Amino acid sequence: MKAGIINVTGYAGSELARILYQHPEVEIASVTGRSAAGQKLGEVFPHLSQLDLTITPELEGSLDLVFSALPHKASAEAVIPLLEQGIKTVDISADFRLKDAREYTEWYGVEHPDPTYLEEAVYGLPELHHEEVPGSRLIANPGCYPTSAILGMAPAVEHRLVEGGIVIDSKSGVSGAGRTLALTTHYSEVNENVMAYSLGGHRHLPEITQELNALSEDTLAITFLTHLIPMTRGILSSCYAQLRPEYLDSGDPSQRIRDLYEDYYKGHPFVVVASRPPQTKQTLGNNQCLVHPVVDSRTGRLIVISCIDNLVKGAAGQAVQNMNLMFGWPEDLALDSVAVYP
Amino acid sequence: MKAGIINVTGYAGSELARILYQHPEVEIASVTGRSAAGQKLGEVFPHLSQLDLTITPELEGSLDLVFSALPHKASAEAVIPLLEQGIKTVDISADFRLKDAREYTEWYGVEHPDPTYLEEAVYGLPELHHEEVPGSRLIANPGCYPTSAILGMAPAVEHRLVEGGIVIDSKSGVSGAGRTLALTTHYSEVNENVMAYSLGGHRHLPEITQELNALSEDTLAITFLTHLIPMTRGILSSCYAQLRPEYLDSGDPSQRIRDLYEDYYKGHPFVVVASRPPQTKQTLGNNQCLVHPVVDSRTGRLIVISCIDNLVKGAAGQAVQNMNLMFGWPEDLALDSVAVYP
Amino acid sequence: MKAGIINVTGYAGSELARILYQHPEVEIASVTGRSAAGQKLGEVFPHLSQLDLTITPELEGSLDLVFSALPHKASAEAVIPLLEQGIKTVDISADFRLKDAREYTEWYGVEHPDPTYLEEAVYGLPELHHEEVPGSRLIANPGCYPTSAILGMAPAVEHRLVEGGIVIDSKSGVSGAGRTLALTTHYSEVNENVMAYSLGGHRHLPEITQELNALSEDTLAITFLTHLIPMTRGILSSCYAQLRPEYLDSGDPSQRIRDLYEDYYKGHPFVVVASRPPQTKQTLGNNQCLVHPVVDSRTGRLIVISCIDNLVKGAAGQAVQNMNLMFGWPEDLALDSVAVYP
Amino acid sequence: MKAGIINVTGYAGSELARILYQHPEVEIASVTGRSAAGQKLGEVFPHLSQLDLTITPELEGSLDLVFSALPHKASAEAVIPLLEQGIKTVDISADFRLKDAREYTEWYGVEHPDPTYLEEAVYGLPELHHEEVPGSRLIANPGCYPTSAILGMAPAVEHRLVEGGIVIDSKSGVSGAGRTLALTTHYSEVNENVMAYSLGGHRHLPEITQELNALSEDTLAITFLTHLIPMTRGILSSCYAQLRPEYLDSGDPSQRIRDLYEDYYKGHPFVVVASRPPQTKQTLGNNQCLVHPVVDSRTGRLIVISCIDNLVKGAAGQAVQNMNLMFGWPEDLALDSVAVYP
Repeated sequence: MKAGIINVTGYAGSELARILYQHPEVEIASVTGRSAAGQKLGEVFPHLSQLDLTITPELEGSLDLVFSALPHKASAEAVIPLLEQGIKTVDISADFRLKDAREYTEWYGVEHPDPTYLEEAVYGLPELHHEEVPGSRLIANPGCYPTSAILGMAPAVEHRLVEGGIVIDSKSGVSGAGRTLALTTHYSEVNENVMAYSLGGHRHLPEITQELNALSEDTLAITFLTHLIPMTRGILSSCYAQLRPEYLDSGDPSQRIRDLYEDYYKGHPFVVVASRPPQTKQTLGNNQCLVHPVVDSRTGRLIVISCIDNLVKGAAGQAVQNMNLMFGWPEDLALDSVAVYP
Repeated sequence: MKAGIINVTGYAGSELARILYQHPEVEIASVTGRSAAGQKLGEVFPHLSQLDLTITPELEGSLDLVFSALPHKASAEAVIPLLEQGIKTVDISADFRLKDAREYTEWYGVEHPDPTYLEEAVYGLPELHHEEVPGSRLIANPGCYPTSAILGMAPAVEHRLVEGGIVIDSKSGVSGAGRTLALTTHYSEVNENVMAYSLGGHRHLPEITQELNALSEDTLAITFLTHLIPMTRGILSSCYAQLRPEYLDSGDPSQRIRDLYEDYYKGHPFVVVASRPPQTKQTLGNNQCLVHPVVDSRTGRLIVISCIDNLVKGAAGQAVQNMNLMFGWPEDLALDSVAVYP
Repeated sequence: MKAGIINVTGYAGSELARILYQHPEVEIASVTGRSAAGQKLGEVFPHLSQLDLTITPELEGSLDLVFSALPHKASAEAVIPLLEQGIKTVDISADFRLKDAREYTEWYGVEHPDPTYLEEAVYGLPELHHEEVPGSRLIANPGCYPTSAILGMAPAVEHRLVEGGIVIDSKSGVSGAGRTLALTTHYSEVNENVMAYSLGGHRHLPEITQELNALSEDTLAITFLTHLIPMTRGILSSCYAQLRPEYLDSGDPSQRIRDLYEDYYKGHPFVVVASRPPQTKQTLGNNQCLVHPVVDSRTGRLIVISCIDNLVKGAAGQAVQNMNLMFGWPEDLALDSVAVYP
Repeated sequence: MKAGIINVTGYAGSELARILYQHPEVEIASVTGRSAAGQKLGEVFPHLSQLDLTITPELEGSLDLVFSALPHKASAEAVIPLLEQGIKTVDISADFRLKDAREYTEWYGVEHPDPTYLEEAVYGLPELHHEEVPGSRLIANPGCYPTSAILGMAPAVEHRLVEGGIVIDSKSGVSGAGRTLALTTHYSEVNENVMAYSLGGHRHLPEITQELNALSEDTLAITFLTHLIPMTRGILSSCYAQLRPEYLDSGDPSQRIRDLYEDYYKGHPFVVVASRPPQTKQTLGNNQCLVHPVVDSRTGRLIVISCIDNLVKGAAGQAVQNMNLMFGWPEDLALDSVAVYP
């Protein structure tokens, strides 16, 4: 199968190249990147020198599937013509994640190029949309934060364990902010520092709300706050919600809820319900999401810790997982590596 | 004035030495440290070579005030005889922070050596106990996490802005765990990693509960979760609570609450109500607590970001602030340096 | 093929497990670790939970090859009985690296348990000993620093490009110091810090001297200085030596020497002669050594930059590379992954 | 005394503000910064909010001394008119460091605006130019790397301890590259990484050569290689040179040379000859240069480790030290703080 990567020169794009290089069924046939067009991939990313590829301004050759790692809006504009040529696409941008075009405009500040695709697109969190991914030709690959947050809270929400809204406090490494230069990702500003950001509302909130509300009977009041911490890869989300009183009665409510989580994710190889609090380092370079629910018995609150590698399960790895499902391959093909620890 | 430091060989102790060295009214007359007894201070801490001091097993000479940086229990055992000799003490351990001896035993797993002192001891958060610190001879210097959390939420609790409990999500640098070796503070385990810990309840919770409940009409259900992030100094606490509906009516509830916070901390030089989200790096090496309240208008929740240098305002700096008040000196004597940024 | 790992609980041991898990020809049949005996591997290293293995105090079952990741002396004592049972071994400790037993005693402070094996053992730097590794039953896997230093200077020494001795200035991440706790690997001491250490002579010097002298007509005066820098993985060695005058004559001496290096490493997949200065991050998690020679035209000195992942090419990856050669498999089997960047 | 800072918005400029704020004799009367003109200093640098200053496009008011933290060329153009108005200046740029205008053009790629000032300017390394600094009106504040390298090697060169050239291998934190955005200072690229850079020759080389040659009878062949390591502040230089044979005779050549270094720096409060290998963390935030000479007895080479905080002794602190000398104040006024450790 021949795959293309649009905008290989960002971190999601280069991570796609890393993973696809190891994929036995995929040939990376074309990679694009406007600023670096004409260069060998190995000139921009020396670690990818093993891949003998030249970056072109536009996709070339006949392709079966394209990953787009463009920024929002530009991505939709690039992806829609491909769909019309019958090429399957996995869009890593935010352009097809929200079902409601007005929400898209509210959060991204632009009109959607063609809202008719919003209904068709499948939100590519395979653990929640396993029925829809395989038959889809347009996957909206989830954001990094939403992947950790939704997988952390979905079982609790769907089983009505909690009430009264959810607080999601997420801590992210810096690579999630991409390769574009900014003072907030300048080494001397980030190192030995932690900061909260986007206090007025982060763009990943509507995805989280959309997906968790779809599992809930009530509309959920979700507070989502993002923090930048001095590391390159990894997101850890700490989620808080009030347990319904009936879940506090059992002898060991934490164990009961952990069992329920394990049952919920049975058959999903990439969500691991951890018996001890997980750490982002345990996911470095691989596609797992580690989830750990526990009950704060003093207050009756449920706490869920959820962590991922933001560039793998939070971006490129999940995109490959979606591709595997779309092509009928084993879900974990090329994605079964062990985390690089320490 | 002659001061002594018990257990100068930990991070709180060495930070005390750093700050006191610059204090115009204080002579560091005696420093102890069991394992390093007999060594020059500069042999253990080369950055303190300027201080020509020898570490002794026990305090020596006539002293006006002693700081104890021993671990809990050992600290009380060292401090009580000093009090009986009429020496003022600032205890940096947890031994005199909790008013209820049973709580102490529950959280620290030992009987308190002499609970009669618990009533007398003043919880040395000067912004809350400014009336009591000056006349006290026994200051229980607050924990690092509680300093950030209590200062972040005190105005909201005392003014009854919030209801339904509080979630405090704290992120700490590693120096808070001290100089004692452990796998959880081993470089290769901490670097490029974030983890939640003490999910069953952190020992700093009862301090937070005690102090915030003292300001509240109701008993507060507080969930407090601690995280270790890859940096040396700094704590940032993100606090969440539901605003009472009446506080959402005003045109700009965030501004109204910020005004209220500014008013609350008027005259307190070390709490700065920041107009933008603060970062721990802005406090590195100095005694400030930066507090930033903001309203999440979608959910009506109050979010407060609060950050400090855990070794300064969270330990040694606050201890010196307490000393300044006890001796009638300007509160910020030797504590007015600018943060070392970047 | 069934392999065992002695002392899987250190970083070299766990890295071996990570790499071997992906090896199509190898079954990890037994893993040992004294302190953790009886525990599942996934309890000690959650990232290895996918490997369903229990740590035992001693090796179990019938094995074809054993990797020993024990400390020196203990390793030789464990390995020699295995050899006598006819089991091939790759020893990751220093016990069989030095040909001269007196040197071993001088640097390691103990008598060698059985110096008769020193002659037989092959120093497992496959790029230098490609003839001897395949037929060997006892491989002395090189130290991490020597791997980078020797591969950096071998072509220059063997081709007599330089004279007057060599200065090797190496910078290492902290994982090279292992998982054993020490103040020098305590997070708060290492972070935001750089230090030189072992100024009296690092134990890896005699390996470097032995191997480079074997390629040289003269005895080389080598100064080797090690530095600890705040990162987990990676070693970068900067090597300096005076070029013989005849090599300065050509139009572009740097290019001429780079050509010579490329020729030297032709057919060796894991040494890449980089056309630009390499960075350790370009090797994270993979088995490459990136080498970049360049001439300082102002002084006529040759500078060679050489970098590796200390746990892969500097330990576990090289051990697997040696195993591949011993068993007649492709040299890069299970070792062809792309570095995890950024 | 009224001082001005040109270009306060970089790291050297903001560090000057931090230090001068604590200076009892200096009032910061004017600060400039083109891009941030009109903003309060505390808006750009929240940690400097205590300084109630507004950034202006040009200097304002009557000033006694000006620090220029502009980039090269722009700095000379700003400084020369000040000199002509009779205002003393300390120039933190490279514009007046090199005595030879052709060298300036060779390394900086521009013509010097007015080479007549090159002779007058004093290279502001007070330990070497203590006679000339006090009477000067134009100080060329040294580069960060040269400060560490020259102070490390000056005693050995002046006393003719070494022969055959010098290799200087320097490791720097990232703040030395300033606040201007670049991919090489982008967090995700620098973290967990070490790289050599400027292999063709770093601009700080001619300063080092000029100053060390001035102390030497012969022309020295100096190789100087710079490395970027993942930390914010600090430079550690490891210097290597062959000892003349006569210095190897004594019983303890390291001790003899250390004595000689101590003697050389007697009366200079900011150079500390350390008896153990120093670490950059021991200088964080203060103006010391820690120097540690040691003999590699196997090869007869002298190794000198030298470290500083690049923004203090390597920039702003040294500038203030020069100012103190120019105004006849104690050399360490406002510069005697203890390093912030850990």
